[in-house]
Amino acid sequence: MNDKRLGRQTVALAHPPSVLSFSNIGGKFEGQGPLADFFDEISNDSFFGEKTWEKAESAMQKTVLQRALEKAELTPEDLDYILAGDLLNQCIGSSFGLRDFRVPFYGLYGACSTMGESLSLASLLIDGGYADRAAALTSSHFCTAERQYRMPVPYGSQRTPTAQWTTTAAGCTILGSDGPGPYVTHVTCGRIVDKGITDANNMGAAMAPAAYDTLSAFFRDTGYKPADFDLILTGDLGELGHAIVRDFFQRDGVDMGPQFQDCGLLLYDRKHQDMHAGASGCGCSASVLNGYLLRKMREGKWKTILFAPTGALLSPTSSGQGESIPSICHAVRLSAVRE
Amino acid sequence: MNDKRLGRQTVALAHPPSVLSFSNIGGKFEGQGPLADFFDEISNDSFFGEKTWEKAESAMQKTVLQRALEKAELTPEDLDYILAGDLLNQCIGSSFGLRDFRVPFYGLYGACSTMGESLSLASLLIDGGYADRAAALTSSHFCTAERQYRMPVPYGSQRTPTAQWTTTAAGCTILGSDGPGPYVTHVTCGRIVDKGITDANNMGAAMAPAAYDTLSAFFRDTGYKPADFDLILTGDLGELGHAIVRDFFQRDGVDMGPQFQDCGLLLYDRKHQDMHAGASGCGCSASVLNGYLLRKMREGKWKTILFAPTGALLSPTSSGQGESIPSICHAVRLSAVRE
Repeated sequence: MNDKRLGRQTVALAHPPSVLSFSNIGGKFEGQGPLADFFDEISNDSFFGEKTWEKAESAMQKTVLQRALEKAELTPEDLDYILAGDLLNQCIGSSFGLRDFRVPFYGLYGACSTMGESLSLASLLIDGGYADRAAALTSSHFCTAERQYRMPVPYGSQRTPTAQWTTTAAGCTILGSDGPGPYVTHVTCGRIVDKGITDANNMGAAMAPAAYDTLSAFFRDTGYKPADFDLILTGDLGELGHAIVRDFFQRDGVDMGPQFQDCGLLLYDRKHQDMHAGASGCGCSASVLNGYLLRKMREGKWKTILFAPTGALLSPTSSGQGESIPSICHAVRLSAVRE
Repeated sequence: MNDKRLGRQTVALAHPPSVLSFSNIGGKFEGQGPLADFFDEISNDSFFGEKTWEKAESAMQKTVLQRALEKAELTPEDLDYILAGDLLNQCIGSSFGLRDFRVPFYGLYGACSTMGESLSLASLLIDGGYADRAAALTSSHFCTAERQYRMPVPYGSQRTPTAQWTTTAAGCTILGSDGPGPYVTHVTCGRIVDKGITDANNMGAAMAPAAYDTLSAFFRDTGYKPADFDLILTGDLGELGHAIVRDFFQRDGVDMGPQFQDCGLLLYDRKHQDMHAGASGCGCSASVLNGYLLRKMREGKWKTILFAPTGALLSPTSSGQGESIPSICHAVRLSAVRE
């Protein structure tokens, strides 16, 4: 056991990588929500100037990476790695969106945990001395996700009350070995957890045990308590899933407190925007992190954040074959200052 | 620039991780080919005892990981990470096949380059001190791939002469910080390359420029020449794609020599098995590596191998929208002895 490793799942980074820059982009509904001012760009055109929604999703990834590079005054040649993935079959949002940058690329599949997974691996590659700078990014698009996972949007299918709304958004963080912060101090790698939930319209409940598993591992491995954080954020558990995680911890005698929140519950106006159980999609936690969270951390509002997005590792084929929904959660601790 | 890094894309591992064990499994046709004796298990049942082909693919991943653990006399608790992915939508071959092991998991999507990508990241995590042991694995299944990418097998569609045959196989390598070898000494991370090929029945041609790009980077970064290797292996370029890479190098005045081969051309009997342009699929390079190649390296037949599988990052949706085929290649240098 190496001394960088705390317990089984957590790494304490010897030289915490710094956020160099971050960028996000959103669609029409994201621009009508309470975090509208924290987007670099809002597009009222769901096609983002492209001919198909899939190409639109690729355009979002291209845009956030380009803008994050500009903010950090970097060129693609300055990046040692890109780590990215998305929800689309064969992750075409990433491969087509990022093909023109000519940067060494590790493609990921972590469903809606991808922002956590990409940040984790980027941090490890930098801390390990394998990279000076790396970009972590992901995206989702309501219309590509509906077409692929449920029904094409023009069919006008009804949604169940437990259903969540796939965010049309992308987010990108560029990390470097040195910089102004925030800093990634810890990385907790999730395990696949499957408690037998089969309802693909209730992904929050399916993903809750994975969030509980990874957050528990983080607290166990590091000795931190929920009260040590200004914010603990799951990605897109939505109303139901988030409440389940809080209950799980309560049964352990752990009060997660009011600082325990969910990106999917922050992104839309729960009163005036009818998104049912909340936002979902890789782009949800990615766009909340790479706008609202990192900007407010830099402004001094929060000192430490535990960011723990979850992913549901199902496919329409697995659901069609009667399978349950395996899930995963990857957590990253962010600190505004070097500790 | 850290001194672990050679050039832009290659890392020379400070303490090369060792192969602890390896395992593979194949289907009926793999068992009729010239490498039949190098499989741990051949199943004549394309369902591998399951009810669907997708569940069969998951069963293959479960089996190879279980067997690799047994060979190394390890339990799942001894593994710090699993790195895996596959060709299926949302990578369900991996998430369902590996959910019961309860090992920290980073899901990857690199299409048929996944064995290279997973070995690369596992090596970096171990060399960086973030893991003592990690498993890298992937799979493919002829029937799941045909159903998803082309037509369900029972439809009996005709195949073009340039088409390749998706291997029904899986392979797993367990790496550790110390062990008997072979050792992973270098890792070259590929970039996405897209030269505008749109024929999804000629993936070898689409992937050839990616193989050329990564192999060129490896030679440039390390100073090695093709003649320094006993074997240089692409993954599943097939007859056409492999010849294109050889031509590319010839134009640069570089003779790749007879040691330049392709796993997809080794797996089947080109005379008596009509697989058209050769084998393909993540399971092709994975099963050739985790049987024939690693066993023969341990037996002393080859000292150094450059293993460079390629992946075509397309989807049926992207092809349907008239898109070309972005590709990637991840290379790993293996040495029988510590250098």
